[in-house]
Amino acid sequence: MRIAVLTFEGFNELDSFIASAMLNRVKQPALKALIVCPTAQVASMNGVVVHTQAPLAFAREADAVIVGSGVKTREIVRDAALMGELRLDPKRQIIGAQCSGALVLAKLGLLAGVPACTDMTTKPWVQEAGIEVLNQPFVAHGNVATAGGCLGSHYLAAWTIARLAGWRAAEAVVHYVAPVGQKDEYVERARTALAPYL
Amino acid sequence: MRIAVLTFEGFNELDSFIASAMLNRVKQPALKALIVCPTAQVASMNGVVVHTQAPLAFAREADAVIVGSGVKTREIVRDAALMGELRLDPKRQIIGAQCSGALVLAKLGLLAGVPACTDMTTKPWVQEAGIEVLNQPFVAHGNVATAGGCLGSHYLAAWTIARLAGWRAAEAVVHYVAPVGQKDEYVERARTALAPYL
Repeated sequence: MRIAVLTFEGFNELDSFIASAMLNRVKQPALKALIVCPTAQVASMNGVVVHTQAPLAFAREADAVIVGSGVKTREIVRDAALMGELRLDPKRQIIGAQCSGALVLAKLGLLAGVPACTDMTTKPWVQEAGIEVLNQPFVAHGNVATAGGCLGSHYLAAWTIARLAGWRAAEAVVHYVAPVGQKDEYVERARTALAPYL
Repeated sequence: MRIAVLTFEGFNELDSFIASAMLNRVKQPALKALIVCPTAQVASMNGVVVHTQAPLAFAREADAVIVGSGVKTREIVRDAALMGELRLDPKRQIIGAQCSGALVLAKLGLLAGVPACTDMTTKPWVQEAGIEVLNQPFVAHGNVATAGGCLGSHYLAAWTIARLAGWRAAEAVVHYVAPVGQKDEYVERARTALAPYL
């Protein structure tokens, strides 16, 4: 199964890479997460240049889409051409957004009538879009999830893995990436955060 | 102050980017972390191509150096030319290694006589180098630290920030990047992990 991790100019490295690195740990069934940018390469909020691994249109074919975060998301959602390319479909795709990625899902109408999670900086803009923001790291409604706080992206990744490959696969990846000596604690915390949404 | 985040071919995205993104959050005093590769660009273990932000020699001038991890570290430490470029100096530099980065510090003689932290996969190779491996996420001796488990890199980043800019700055960054609703808990856990080494 293939996952698009949408990564825009000015992206936050934590949000795109925690998700993609965790998703790519799943080998059975094989998940393949690709960094997907609107252009051949983009620079992060800290000037790190990365190459796209697939064209933007891949987001429509992927089994799951994670919308990363960054410092330019408010400009991105005003880019009609770019947003027009993102015809995501929650009926056949698992869709998640990290931090300011919630603004993209809001613009696409995917958060209509449901509360969302986002980071503290983005919160007023998500509220401005008429969406209630929760004081928790993760929430999902059906196939659409949002997460808030950079390191909260490990919950979003774990939920995506659980939905695509089952909880045992998600648990194994959380265990693998967790700090040494704190692995059971991390798995337990992820289980608690995600259990209502699995 | 400037920090080199050493990032080699086959690198683990979590290890280089959790560290660099957290370090770049510190504005007072300004920390600037750069992704530093031995070549103009490298590909991650999942095929993500990134551009170096400074030449390898920058690692010798930087105030701090974080050695990232990856799937080719055992080959890298056998590359005499590359290792010869890394004349790190713990007398004037803060030095940390994440997961298999410990093999680089071991090769440079920076872990002589002290136990280290690393991930479960790298553990036997670090032990083979005659170094005791601890079942905990983080340890430091003077200016040299090691961390184990991908997400343990947030402890390594916090310690580096604390050493360069003080604990209050480190605490503020951990609070910022922590999942929403779990920020105090994350700060407290980081404090507990790092207190013996500050």
